[in-house]
Amino acid sequence: METNAQYLLDHLRSIPDFPKKGINFRDVTTLFKDAKALEIMEEELYQLYKDKGITKVVGLETRGYIMGAILARRLNAGFVMARKPGKLPATTVKEKFTKEYGTDAIEIHLDAIEPHDVVLLHDDLLATGGTIKAAWTLVKKLNPKKCYMNFLVEIRDEGLHGREAIGEGIEITTLLTV
Amino acid sequence: METNAQYLLDHLRSIPDFPKKGINFRDVTTLFKDAKALEIMEEELYQLYKDKGITKVVGLETRGYIMGAILARRLNAGFVMARKPGKLPATTVKEKFTKEYGTDAIEIHLDAIEPHDVVLLHDDLLATGGTIKAAWTLVKKLNPKKCYMNFLVEIRDEGLHGREAIGEGIEITTLLTV
Repeated sequence: METNAQYLLDHLRSIPDFPKKGINFRDVTTLFKDAKALEIMEEELYQLYKDKGITKVVGLETRGYIMGAILARRLNAGFVMARKPGKLPATTVKEKFTKEYGTDAIEIHLDAIEPHDVVLLHDDLLATGGTIKAAWTLVKKLNPKKCYMNFLVEIRDEGLHGREAIGEGIEITTLLTV
Repeated sequence: METNAQYLLDHLRSIPDFPKKGINFRDVTTLFKDAKALEIMEEELYQLYKDKGITKVVGLETRGYIMGAILARRLNAGFVMARKPGKLPATTVKEKFTKEYGTDAIEIHLDAIEPHDVVLLHDDLLATGGTIKAAWTLVKKLNPKKCYMNFLVEIRDEGLHGREAIGEGIEITTLLTV
């Protein structure tokens, strides 16, 4: 019998040389378009987080919105978009971070997280960990009770060490490691 | 007793002069961050589409991904991202459309929709209707059995006529009209 993990792995597509030569891009759109893969991911994420008292799921732009929103609903939590600068209309807090070339930044609304919140940060892929680390720093500025972190896929096979880059102090789960 | 529609309306935020002077931006992030609003929207959307045989929900970048994904899961359908050009890694189909200044385009993966699919196109706001009309044209190129269209909020109060711009030939629903 095929395991859930194997089913997900079989539906994760790899695209060589995207977005540039030498990168083997993991394409989660083939998981999202498959109703059974969506169901499995929801169920596995729910089992991981059902007893944690999560009140807000923060999804990272853009692909972190899909399972982030589904999980928020399943946990009866609210959903918060972490966005690239200038996209959110109300007052935001912002955190800059270093990318391969230059810097980028991520924002959330100032009123998106409150001190009573238990927050799950979610994205589809853990590669270098730069963006989610910035999002975590950002969320901590708003003083939630506790933070957790989840990815659908952790990428280790390109010499990436995202988990180590994020560092200590937060419990991280992933559904697949490739 | 407060109706569901009133609850949603009370949680929809208006931001004057965003993204530019004179536009009263409807901010759905205050609906998304509220667990009860998410629950109400899921239930209302489910009631609208539960008997339509939807197999794929196509959400429009970016805010159409939130309730689009939640509804896809609830309907036991797959979820497809319609994205801005250059973001999707595999082979895509593309449709250009005219904006206030210049043109823009939207893409989906060529293999995202199949002829047996019944498709629901979803976005958060119906304003001019330009983007969703292009997405509909795009989806039709892939020959699905049938298409439906939904928005969380239809905006009429700025002299907008998005529904008319989309034209005949598709059943459109909205949860709120402002």
